[in-house]
Amino acid sequence: MPFSSSLLENAVNEFAKLPGIGKKTALRLALHLIKQPETEAKLFGEAIIKMRREIMFCKRCHNISDTETCHICSNPMRQQQQICVVETIRDVIAIENTQQYNGLYHVLGGIISPLDGIGPDQLTIHPLLERLKNESVQELIFALNPNIQGDTTIYYIAKKLHQLPIKITSIARGIAFGGELEYADEITLGKSISHRIPVIRELNNES
Amino acid sequence: MPFSSSLLENAVNEFAKLPGIGKKTALRLALHLIKQPETEAKLFGEAIIKMRREIMFCKRCHNISDTETCHICSNPMRQQQQICVVETIRDVIAIENTQQYNGLYHVLGGIISPLDGIGPDQLTIHPLLERLKNESVQELIFALNPNIQGDTTIYYIAKKLHQLPIKITSIARGIAFGGELEYADEITLGKSISHRIPVIRELNNES
Repeated sequence: MPFSSSLLENAVNEFAKLPGIGKKTALRLALHLIKQPETEAKLFGEAIIKMRREIMFCKRCHNISDTETCHICSNPMRQQQQICVVETIRDVIAIENTQQYNGLYHVLGGIISPLDGIGPDQLTIHPLLERLKNESVQELIFALNPNIQGDTTIYYIAKKLHQLPIKITSIARGIAFGGELEYADEITLGKSISHRIPVIRELNNES
Repeated sequence: MPFSSSLLENAVNEFAKLPGIGKKTALRLALHLIKQPETEAKLFGEAIIKMRREIMFCKRCHNISDTETCHICSNPMRQQQQICVVETIRDVIAIENTQQYNGLYHVLGGIISPLDGIGPDQLTIHPLLERLKNESVQELIFALNPNIQGDTTIYYIAKKLHQLPIKITSIARGIAFGGELEYADEITLGKSISHRIPVIRELNNES
């Protein structure tokens, strides 16, 4: 073995199990921790063990949580009539970072993708339908990635809801802020034209 | 806070302290561990805590070790008359990976760099000189990075040894295997010409 220490080798192997971390990066990270005070490595290791042992999924929105109900669902200041449907916890964090949304979420845990063997039953679609029956939701906002699987998932859920008086929307597709028209793909550019926004309304919204 | 869980936030912050790991990568790694079985996260965290707590530095060569004397120093099959002087533990691993060297090592822990405030006393140069007095070393091979600090360090140590009957060598500089002449810098190309090797000797060595 090229390592002179099985302790180091173990730590490197564990780091290298993480996605996107190769053996060389794993070694760099392990050697960095060796140079830190012992308390630093302890904090690091314990934070990970504790997180995995104690983490929960919110029983209402299936977001990651420290408690049975997550801090978004249990916050009375949030709009209880809006639910934003996302694929993963990462999407919740991305939307929260924008500080533009004050409603609730529902984390599907994936999108319908028959080729990958993921159907509605593998996702939290049934709990979402139950929520919509029991909560007084006025708007369901789909924030799924723009692809065929995303559209299939929206279509599947929307169809199940056609008898409920719920407004169903999807986040706008269009040219990204700072993006250049000539480099945009045809579908995005086409959709951004067909879903054009009255400029006056935009200005009113901003004021 | 954009995270719905302080457990997750803690783990992400700990990951993001590592060099080259940003907040987004840290989040990806933490979420990956959440998806793994609890035992995986436990193995990972404990490997790091245990490594930092129990790791030692070989009292002879200052390489990383599980025991007082590292497995290279305590291996009687290794050439005890050769010491390869390197800057860091990473260099030991790199050289061990080549499987071309069967002597011992000495890890300096850095190189002389007055601008960074690193002088001979911050490195393991004194212990190296002690080793050379007490052990029957015939050859000291410098495998330092080719730059001014590296050359200064070689010069400093070599000067201290001029009265000892020890052969002092340095790893060869030259065009890397697979490298192209026209893209090599002038110093490397110049040194590779002035330190040219008789082809016959090369062929003999390989046979």
